[in-house]
Amino acid sequence: MTYVHQPAAENRPVRLGLIGAGWIGAFHAESVAHRLPNARLDAVADPALAAAEALAGRLGVARITADPADVINDPEIDAVLIASPVRFHSGLIAAAARAGKDVFCEKPGGRTVEELDEALAAADAAGVNVQFGFNRRFAADFAAARKLIDDGAVGTPQLMRSLTRDPGTAAGIASPERIAPGTIFLETLIHDFDTLNWLNPGAVPLKVHAVADALVAPEAKAGGLLDTAVVTVTYSNGAIAVAEANFNALYGYDVRGEVFGSAGMVAAGGPQASSAVSYTAAGIASDTVRLNIDLFHDAYTAELARFVDGVAARCAGGAAVGTPAPGGVDARNALAVALAAVRSHETGVPVEVSAVARLRPAEPGLERTGQHAGPGA
Amino acid sequence: MTYVHQPAAENRPVRLGLIGAGWIGAFHAESVAHRLPNARLDAVADPALAAAEALAGRLGVARITADPADVINDPEIDAVLIASPVRFHSGLIAAAARAGKDVFCEKPGGRTVEELDEALAAADAAGVNVQFGFNRRFAADFAAARKLIDDGAVGTPQLMRSLTRDPGTAAGIASPERIAPGTIFLETLIHDFDTLNWLNPGAVPLKVHAVADALVAPEAKAGGLLDTAVVTVTYSNGAIAVAEANFNALYGYDVRGEVFGSAGMVAAGGPQASSAVSYTAAGIASDTVRLNIDLFHDAYTAELARFVDGVAARCAGGAAVGTPAPGGVDARNALAVALAAVRSHETGVPVEVSAVARLRPAEPGLERTGQHAGPGA
Amino acid sequence: MTYVHQPAAENRPVRLGLIGAGWIGAFHAESVAHRLPNARLDAVADPALAAAEALAGRLGVARITADPADVINDPEIDAVLIASPVRFHSGLIAAAARAGKDVFCEKPGGRTVEELDEALAAADAAGVNVQFGFNRRFAADFAAARKLIDDGAVGTPQLMRSLTRDPGTAAGIASPERIAPGTIFLETLIHDFDTLNWLNPGAVPLKVHAVADALVAPEAKAGGLLDTAVVTVTYSNGAIAVAEANFNALYGYDVRGEVFGSAGMVAAGGPQASSAVSYTAAGIASDTVRLNIDLFHDAYTAELARFVDGVAARCAGGAAVGTPAPGGVDARNALAVALAAVRSHETGVPVEVSAVARLRPAEPGLERTGQHAGPGA
Amino acid sequence: MTYVHQPAAENRPVRLGLIGAGWIGAFHAESVAHRLPNARLDAVADPALAAAEALAGRLGVARITADPADVINDPEIDAVLIASPVRFHSGLIAAAARAGKDVFCEKPGGRTVEELDEALAAADAAGVNVQFGFNRRFAADFAAARKLIDDGAVGTPQLMRSLTRDPGTAAGIASPERIAPGTIFLETLIHDFDTLNWLNPGAVPLKVHAVADALVAPEAKAGGLLDTAVVTVTYSNGAIAVAEANFNALYGYDVRGEVFGSAGMVAAGGPQASSAVSYTAAGIASDTVRLNIDLFHDAYTAELARFVDGVAARCAGGAAVGTPAPGGVDARNALAVALAAVRSHETGVPVEVSAVARLRPAEPGLERTGQHAGPGA
Repeated sequence: MTYVHQPAAENRPVRLGLIGAGWIGAFHAESVAHRLPNARLDAVADPALAAAEALAGRLGVARITADPADVINDPEIDAVLIASPVRFHSGLIAAAARAGKDVFCEKPGGRTVEELDEALAAADAAGVNVQFGFNRRFAADFAAARKLIDDGAVGTPQLMRSLTRDPGTAAGIASPERIAPGTIFLETLIHDFDTLNWLNPGAVPLKVHAVADALVAPEAKAGGLLDTAVVTVTYSNGAIAVAEANFNALYGYDVRGEVFGSAGMVAAGGPQASSAVSYTAAGIASDTVRLNIDLFHDAYTAELARFVDGVAARCAGGAAVGTPAPGGVDARNALAVALAAVRSHETGVPVEVSAVARLRPAEPGLERTGQHAGPGA
Repeated sequence: MTYVHQPAAENRPVRLGLIGAGWIGAFHAESVAHRLPNARLDAVADPALAAAEALAGRLGVARITADPADVINDPEIDAVLIASPVRFHSGLIAAAARAGKDVFCEKPGGRTVEELDEALAAADAAGVNVQFGFNRRFAADFAAARKLIDDGAVGTPQLMRSLTRDPGTAAGIASPERIAPGTIFLETLIHDFDTLNWLNPGAVPLKVHAVADALVAPEAKAGGLLDTAVVTVTYSNGAIAVAEANFNALYGYDVRGEVFGSAGMVAAGGPQASSAVSYTAAGIASDTVRLNIDLFHDAYTAELARFVDGVAARCAGGAAVGTPAPGGVDARNALAVALAAVRSHETGVPVEVSAVARLRPAEPGLERTGQHAGPGA
Repeated sequence: MTYVHQPAAENRPVRLGLIGAGWIGAFHAESVAHRLPNARLDAVADPALAAAEALAGRLGVARITADPADVINDPEIDAVLIASPVRFHSGLIAAAARAGKDVFCEKPGGRTVEELDEALAAADAAGVNVQFGFNRRFAADFAAARKLIDDGAVGTPQLMRSLTRDPGTAAGIASPERIAPGTIFLETLIHDFDTLNWLNPGAVPLKVHAVADALVAPEAKAGGLLDTAVVTVTYSNGAIAVAEANFNALYGYDVRGEVFGSAGMVAAGGPQASSAVSYTAAGIASDTVRLNIDLFHDAYTAELARFVDGVAARCAGGAAVGTPAPGGVDARNALAVALAAVRSHETGVPVEVSAVARLRPAEPGLERTGQHAGPGA
Repeated sequence: MTYVHQPAAENRPVRLGLIGAGWIGAFHAESVAHRLPNARLDAVADPALAAAEALAGRLGVARITADPADVINDPEIDAVLIASPVRFHSGLIAAAARAGKDVFCEKPGGRTVEELDEALAAADAAGVNVQFGFNRRFAADFAAARKLIDDGAVGTPQLMRSLTRDPGTAAGIASPERIAPGTIFLETLIHDFDTLNWLNPGAVPLKVHAVADALVAPEAKAGGLLDTAVVTVTYSNGAIAVAEANFNALYGYDVRGEVFGSAGMVAAGGPQASSAVSYTAAGIASDTVRLNIDLFHDAYTAELARFVDGVAARCAGGAAVGTPAPGGVDARNALAVALAAVRSHETGVPVEVSAVARLRPAEPGLERTGQHAGPGA
């Protein structure tokens, strides 16, 4: 053998711990294992230990636990991924921050602005990064739309639209775990609220009007489940936005955005699976995407890659990573709109966002992970 | 010459009189002259006689007058086209009906449901046809959308959208004649309200919430002009619809519709001028349509052709023409939504349509010109 | 009555005579009757007098004859439309020209370049306009493509494509009247050859290679019918073009063009019927156009309108109409490619166009109806 | 800590060696390092040792060498990736096969059918897998097109098209290393020939006619470089196919396929970068992809993933992996068309493929890596 041998590279991968081994937690774990070369999943926590075990076994993760605190306090872990039920989000963020861990947390950041603010204050005090799972910002088409907006294609936004249509089944929708008042606003439309906020840089949402109903599964309405909603959001720069959601799009997973303004319009998204099209006696036909993890496959990877880069930078003691990521301000702004929408649906009239929380815009160019603003900011 | 000579055909063309020689009146006159072989424009009325003269001269129309009554009472006229300012619509409909003329009237049918109802009652009493200028119903893409809906592609509508973006200029928008409270609701969005009603057959609009602003020409706001609006309409079958308008789409004339429901979605419209696309170093590009009379060129012809067929059928003493055309019920239903939107904008809260008028649906399959329903129907 | 009466306009319509009351002749007659306000069809000739009678009766045309010479020599006729079988085209053009009539003739202009040249020489001598039925030049999308090319979007063409797929049935294709050697080249692909010539302004076709087969109706091959063909054409500016045809596109009438060059690409055409699209559990679907008279409905009208304008200008003794129309040079150039393709198919090797005819380009900006160039030009 | 510790997974990654650290070799190395969790790049060979060193350093690969034999004979390597200049392909395949290594080789498999056959015979004798770099088969849109064809959307293919337009610059094209007679046929269009063969399952190419020129860089023509080509291929089932290439598409990387047949058409591909579209006063615009490693990013990963799965299966002593991959028969069939195209270009007349090599179809359902058929098969 006449090989020349090179010394091994010294970069160690970022060591991650996952809290929550459900659907989306498992998908994040797969992204780390298969698509993020500079990160490694080292621990999984889930009160349902069997779920943690199955996931860890599949991916070759050595350490599992029923208690999230084990992961949070593990000195061999650099950062945690939170994919637990929403009611634990803010508490886990705060605990992880106090343990000096960077945090990637699924949306929403909390059930109330107050509890989110406490978590963000803890992160601020600890100087750790907190990034939220607003994955659309990392989807190629939405990122291209934002770039077009930054380049002036829209001018000042005047009319906006963001929609989410999920191809769940009526049966699936009515499953008990999904029946929670506010789910459609706090867990689904919160993506659209963040998208609208993000595509209208420099403006803040002022007023919200929501109309919602149980049209897919009327029998679930009594239990509080809404499956169809339209929310109108008015912004500080005058833009009037519409967010729209439905839980039973038979044709596929459909997420779209549209921003119209003084100079033009930018649109992005849609359910088309690929450029393949057939033309037959029945007409022109093409296929659709059915799962969010297909539609946003690369976006899920990209948001974690961005998070891992930030963790690696902090571990190296370096400066913050330049690329903006959705942080505390973004989580607060989206949550405030969602909570105002819940209240508007309950009262039947428009609701001022200021009645829910004092907001300030995510400043373009200044966004960074961990950034946020509490009431006193 | 060895020609065989055939006897002349006996069908005489339908004889039309036009009231109002402005922009859209002139365009209708051109459609009659150039694209409707079985109709003839014989008289033009406009208080601005010079406008009538210019139009008539251009098209070879022999009779002009400043007084609409001359056309309405002319026994050599079978039917009238009303393209006057809105405040004269209902009065002219009633007068023409009393003179036994069929009527094609631009939208809206009146400024209030009450005055429209009087006009429709007169038409009912006289047994004449009244058709309103909801031209989108005659556009090939919207008609195809409706057919897809009738064929079950949508199922029960749950989410709907209709939008109108007009590429006027800020200067043009602020021109005094356009400054009228309610213009965007009563003259622009009324197309979208009719489209939504029409694409949701069998349902009636129940509740309306409007958000509107002067974002294009803020200086005109004091005078009452709104140039940007989003209106949410809730229907008796649960469908939640959004109508959206703006008066300054720099990129072209953009009219689109979308209906989503329990079985799928149908979408139609958009500003693309043709299938021609260029691919250069600057990217992929295509051109747009800039004028409503280009975007709806064939629809304008088709709605008049439908009207003329109805007139011809009545003149021939025959049965009503089968194809539905937008008549009294449709005009009432769209107007009621528009008036509720005006009130919602003024009050800032949602408004029940029943506070404006008692509605009933345009029954699918039973629609015909002249059909309407007043409160006592 | 207080009407002001205007004097009648003096413009008399152009008086047309039709030769050939078959499928396309009848459609042209309908275009004249219903969509061309400044023209009138006054006579119809067809050896099958019943066909002439039926058409004339339907449209209210008074004079019918079995003998085309009656129309050609009728002093009350300004111009003739030739829609006879191809073998009569050049003879009828020559006869009409000698009678001082402008001529609109369906493609091809003749079966050989020699007979076409004789007809064009007669037209030249008589000073009449001759326009050929290359309707794609008048289709909005193809016209937009040509404009993009004129504006530099393509640069110098390097690769070109034009295709025609006709949704005929296998049964229809094999009908005896269609079985003629060369039909696919001389009657179908001739549209594509003209399109390629027209979209490559200033260049002439030099060399042709054809591959063709009877794949739809193999049983008709013995009788000479080819239903599928690919023809490669090399141009004087280096561009390599492909023309493609098939007689049994089950999905609709599909005509497309594509021009790629040193600066980019322009594409146009396709079978989509409208912008209406459905999204259901079966995927994304839209409908197609099935008939050439639907796909090219407006183009058929526009080519006749252009012809009528030219006739009106000549009748008025005025200068030639400025807009280019496909004339003699264009007919020769397309026919020469078609004949070279026939020969290439027969011999199995590429054929120089110069072996068929000496060509010169239709000079951009100088094209006018009646223009042509014979071998001695 | 209360972690439960799971035993480490036993699957070891497949160990790969790379031969050739140029553009595409480096990209494959990155795919292995970053996107293939069950493979590891352990050695890099390149006569230009600095290139190997740079690549290995960047990716943390420990062993580098100037001599491919070091990699081929390394017992710690399971399989090799060949990305050397084309003239070494068949020799390296044979050598690797004799060393018992599975082989992934870039296209074409050799410069002649004879040398490729020798290599494939060696692979057959050794029982190793050989897969070729026809990446389009792994692109989502082309794979969807093939599935539609398998599902009957096309019926029997009658007209086919495949094109490759590369956005190189005139300067780049004329670089000495690219100037080689036949490059456009053997290195670029060979992708299209494989695509056409693959999308016409069960048929073999019979006859080829090529037209080619140096239109982008005419000054390079004397040196033998052709940059624009159109190749017509006739198949055993009658289908007539066109392959088209150009080396200077200013608008982006454009790869498309289209198959038309007795039941309909399937189309796939194109340069659009994402679904983001802007609408401004300049019209409708969207962006394009500029690099093949962007356009086929996921396809490059997928073809290697397929290869690695095959290697893993063989290492595990298991049965062959079921999913078809482009193997020896495919490489022969594509190469034969390319060589016939070279000869047709040289002679100016169509060339029978049988004059180059005896072919047999890749049997649908039976394809597997390593499969091939020489003249004696």
